[in-house]
Parts: sequence; structure tokens; C-alpha cells
Amino acid sequence: MAIKVGIVGYGNLGKGVQQAIAQNPDFELVAIFTRREPQQMASLLGEAKFEHISAADAYIGVIDVMIMCGGSATDLPEQTPVMARMFNTVDSFDTHANIPAFFDVVDAAAKENGKVSVISTGWDPGLFSLNRLLAQSILPEGTDYTFWGKGVSQGHSDAIRRVPGVKGGVQYTIPVQEVIERIRSGETPELATREKHLRECYVVAEENANQEEIRQAIVSMPNYFSDYDTTVNFITEEQLREEHGEMPHGGFVIRSGITGQGKRQIIEFGLKLDSNPEFTASVLVAYARAVVRMSSEGQKGAKTVFDVPFSYLSPKSAEELRRDLL
Amino acid sequence: MAIKVGIVGYGNLGKGVQQAIAQNPDFELVAIFTRREPQQMASLLGEAKFEHISAADAYIGVIDVMIMCGGSATDLPEQTPVMARMFNTVDSFDTHANIPAFFDVVDAAAKENGKVSVISTGWDPGLFSLNRLLAQSILPEGTDYTFWGKGVSQGHSDAIRRVPGVKGGVQYTIPVQEVIERIRSGETPELATREKHLRECYVVAEENANQEEIRQAIVSMPNYFSDYDTTVNFITEEQLREEHGEMPHGGFVIRSGITGQGKRQIIEFGLKLDSNPEFTASVLVAYARAVVRMSSEGQKGAKTVFDVPFSYLSPKSAEELRRDLL
Repeated sequence: MAIKVGIVGYGNLGKGVQQAIAQNPDFELVAIFTRREPQQMASLLGEAKFEHISAADAYIGVIDVMIMCGGSATDLPEQTPVMARMFNTVDSFDTHANIPAFFDVVDAAAKENGKVSVISTGWDPGLFSLNRLLAQSILPEGTDYTFWGKGVSQGHSDAIRRVPGVKGGVQYTIPVQEVIERIRSGETPELATREKHLRECYVVAEENANQEEIRQAIVSMPNYFSDYDTTVNFITEEQLREEHGEMPHGGFVIRSGITGQGKRQIIEFGLKLDSNPEFTASVLVAYARAVVRMSSEGQKGAKTVFDVPFSYLSPKSAEELRRDLL
Repeated sequence: MAIKVGIVGYGNLGKGVQQAIAQNPDFELVAIFTRREPQQMASLLGEAKFEHISAADAYIGVIDVMIMCGGSATDLPEQTPVMARMFNTVDSFDTHANIPAFFDVVDAAAKENGKVSVISTGWDPGLFSLNRLLAQSILPEGTDYTFWGKGVSQGHSDAIRRVPGVKGGVQYTIPVQEVIERIRSGETPELATREKHLRECYVVAEENANQEEIRQAIVSMPNYFSDYDTTVNFITEEQLREEHGEMPHGGFVIRSGITGQGKRQIIEFGLKLDSNPEFTASVLVAYARAVVRMSSEGQKGAKTVFDVPFSYLSPKSAEELRRDLL
């Protein structure tokens, strides 16, 4: 019997989940919940039932797992604890510093109501976290590196757009390839912020704006750009739309460790993603499968990727996995 | 209280486990079990108690987990089921085709006696298997690639040494870097065996042996070399000893998948190891920690890496892991 799914939130991530569900025949999409007017929603992919988010409680006992697709700033802190009282949930809450507090709130809500909630899936937090944990557990003596990109940073793109005279823009975070090669070849450098990533901005200036002033305002912006080597390229609105409309991302987690008498051992995990939201959505769907399985075993409360055996992510049986993938 | 460990077998892998335990202060090495004369064994690292393998039953209730360090051809099929009746165990059984049968035998032995046995850890099977499962679960539409090396293949080195006129030799498996770059850039080629790996042989010929005949015998050897581009280099015994005494290895697991409307998503995991046995040993020790935890929870029977949440591999608490690594 198919796993019955609800999607909460229908932005890029929610649309990605709808597409990912279509690739996984053991899932069935029951409804998409939105704060907008359900009648005015259009499905990206085939038919879909839209419901106002306030109508979710009518689906108690019907939906096996709610896939939470809101943002981490305000949506998830509000929505996940509410939904976790009624449904098993999975989300991609990614504000690292607030994860412990978020965990506690969701854990209480889910436990009280006998539900399972896997929080903070996706790729960072998520797959990158898994690789940090795995590599540290295997190589207790070593150095960790995380590089992000090449990819669009939403926060930095927003920061650009707040500069006076800027009409639009996008920022790419780019890992410094030479440094990654040094680490791969066995060096363990201590790296300043500036040495790890470059920031590349594509900016549409308002007519009559002073481009040099905009450039200075961006490259000197504290927290966002002043600690980096930042390049600012001015482009037209049409170029922004046509050449920078995608949301690629990725990165690398590397641990360079030592065993025995100084033997160098390097573990590396990398992602190269054409679509950040579609990939995050695909991770959410795999963990939704695990949530339902954990719930059916009688588990309850908040969980993270650290608590989930990989066999729970797959529709295949344990026998198949041992035979075909081990 | 420290986890009390026994090591079964004291070759390269057993020595690596002894070294890995020294890097993990939550472990205590109780004894090393050997088929050789215990009195004649010398410890690589500090003091160690050696016991004949037949004396293992005296340690029932004392040793929390036995780390099995024998070979997959004959040692582990015999030793793991015996030890799994008395102790929790972890091993690196790596004969892929025989894993299902090995699992069943160990599962029965461990279950009957209330023990946990994690089989087939290490890196392939082991970490590579985990990455194959993870990537397939997240990207159901895609293509898998596994590359090995650069590293010493024991089986191929043995094959070289069986050629008449060969005194000694070592074989390196080398992944074809250009093909890996094509896959990283988004291509999904169908690859013949020859296109994925090169085989590089360093051979010491006997005096008066015909080197060209040796070269022909190697490169045309079915199963081992005839499907590959193989190079044969003749060296002296001294060169073999001084330049080829290490056991490096590594490789890559790559899944190149598609989401949504044809977005390319690439997941890659790679290892670059100065010492294959020391790294495998480090994986065994991390999974030994998990074995003890699973046993203390009342689990029993055979398990694989697919069944173990990563949090079980770490000495850190769930709170620490969420705070520091998620």
C-alpha cells in the first residue's frame, strides 16, 4: 500500500517534493496545504488537490507523513510543531544555531501525540552532517573541511538587493579549487575565510545609479562580503533572467585524518546539483519513507538523520539491499 | 566504562585495529587471539595479552565485542559463526557474492545466543555500500559508477606472482581520471571494463627469465588482465621492497541522477587511503562501538552497515552531535 503524503507549502521546495514523489511509485500525494487561496493554486505536475493549511486536521488518520516545505526563518518554527501534533513530519530546518531548540520543541509535540518527526534533513544540514559524523567516527584524529558551491546563496543575493541603486542581483558562492586540491593531496592547511570561498555577484543597477558606489557598498559589506574576495559584474535585467534563473549548488565535506604511524587517510563527500530545491526535496522524500517506517515500529518524538539507518530510506527489502548494494 | 575488546587475528588488519583502539579512549583492548603460538607473538604497540584462539571461551562475559581480523576466503566463514555464539562480533567479510549466505549463517549463530554481529564493514563493502544505498534512495532515476584505486589489488598481485619466471610483484588498479571527469561534468557514459580502470604491474623477474614472455603471460591472463589496458614494469627486488611496500587504496562511488524536468544531480563519495588495512581497521572499530550499543539495547542477530544509524558510531551524545555536527 502506498505511503500517503501531504505537502505543506508550495514554493520551489514543495514543487520539488511533488516532482520527487512522481519518481517514487511507493508514494501517493494526497493533498498540498497552503496559506494561500486553495482555489487559486495551479499544480506544476498533473492533477493535485489543494487545501488551506487550516484544514489539515481533517486528514488526521489519512495522511501518513507531512512533508514540510516552508522556510526556516519563520515558517517551520511555527508549522512543524503544530503539524507534529497531528502527523508524522519531515522537514529541512536549516538554521544550524537553532537546531537544538527546534529539536526540543518538535520532540515534545511529537512525543505527546505518538508521532515521529525527522527534522533538518536536506544536504546541509543533512547529507553533509552525516558525512561529518561518519568521518569523525572513523578517523578520530583529523581535520574537517566544508566547502559550499558553486551555488546561489539566497541570503547573500538578498543582501545585494538591499543596496541602494540595485534593481536585482544574484550571488554565487565559489569554493577555491586550488585549496581543495591541496587538501586532497594530503595538506591540512588552516584557512582564513577568504581562502576558502570566493563571492561572485551579478547585479542589475538602476538607471543613473553609480556602479562604482554599488560595487564598493557590496564588497565592503560586513558579515556578508568584507571577509571575502568579491567580484561584482553588472548585467542587464534580461541577462539576469536568462542566465541566472537556475538554482545550482553543491559542495564538499572532507576529513583528512591520520592512522597508525602517520598514514594519511582522506574521506570526501561531494554534491554537484543543478537544482538545490529539487535535490533537497528528493532527500525529504527519502526520509519521509523512513519516518513512516519508524512510526510503524512504534517509535516517537523528534529524530535527525543521525538516528536513521540507511535501509529505512529505501523501498527495497533488507535481503535485496544486502544482495545488490552491499 | 570502557568497551572491552578482543582482536581475532593479528595480521595487517589486526595490527591496524590495535592502533585504531589506541586512538579511541572509550575502548580497552583485553586480548589478541591467534592461531599461532601466543608466547611467540610480539605486540606492535605497547603491551598486549596474546591468547590462543581456542581459549576465547574463557572471555565470555568479559569481552564486549570481538573484532574479527581474518581473511574472507577461509578465516571469517569459519571463525565469525563460532565467535558469534559467544560474543558480539564485527567483521569485514568482503566476498560480495557470498554475503547473503554468510549473513544467514552468522544471523542464526548470533540470534540463538542473544548476540549482535555486524558483518561486512570496511569500505567496500561498507562505506561504499552505504553511499550506493543513500544515493539510490535519494535519486531513483540515475546511473551508478564505482571506481577503485589508485591501490594495490592483492588478488591481482598474487596472480602476477604465479606467472613462471616471476620472483615478486605488485599490481596497482588505477581509475581512468578522464572518465571520472566526464561523469562529474554530467555525462553518463556506458563504460566497458577497459575504459574504467588501468592495471599497472611492477614485476621482479628471475635471472635469465624472458621478460617479454612474462609480459605477454600477464597482459593476456583471462579474468585478471586481458580485459584491461595493462602495463608491466620490470624492477629490482630492492625497488619492490623500498618503493612498493605500502598498501594505499581508495576509490569513488558516484551516482549521476535526474530530478524534475531533467536537472542533473551528482552525488560523489571518495576515499584516498595511504593504508588500506589501517583504514578498514578504523571502520571496524567505529562499528564495534555500534555493536555494543545495539546489544545493550537488546538487539540480536546479524546486521550490516545498512542497519546502523550513524549516531551509534560515535562516542558523543545525541545532544552533542546535534549541536556540533548537524
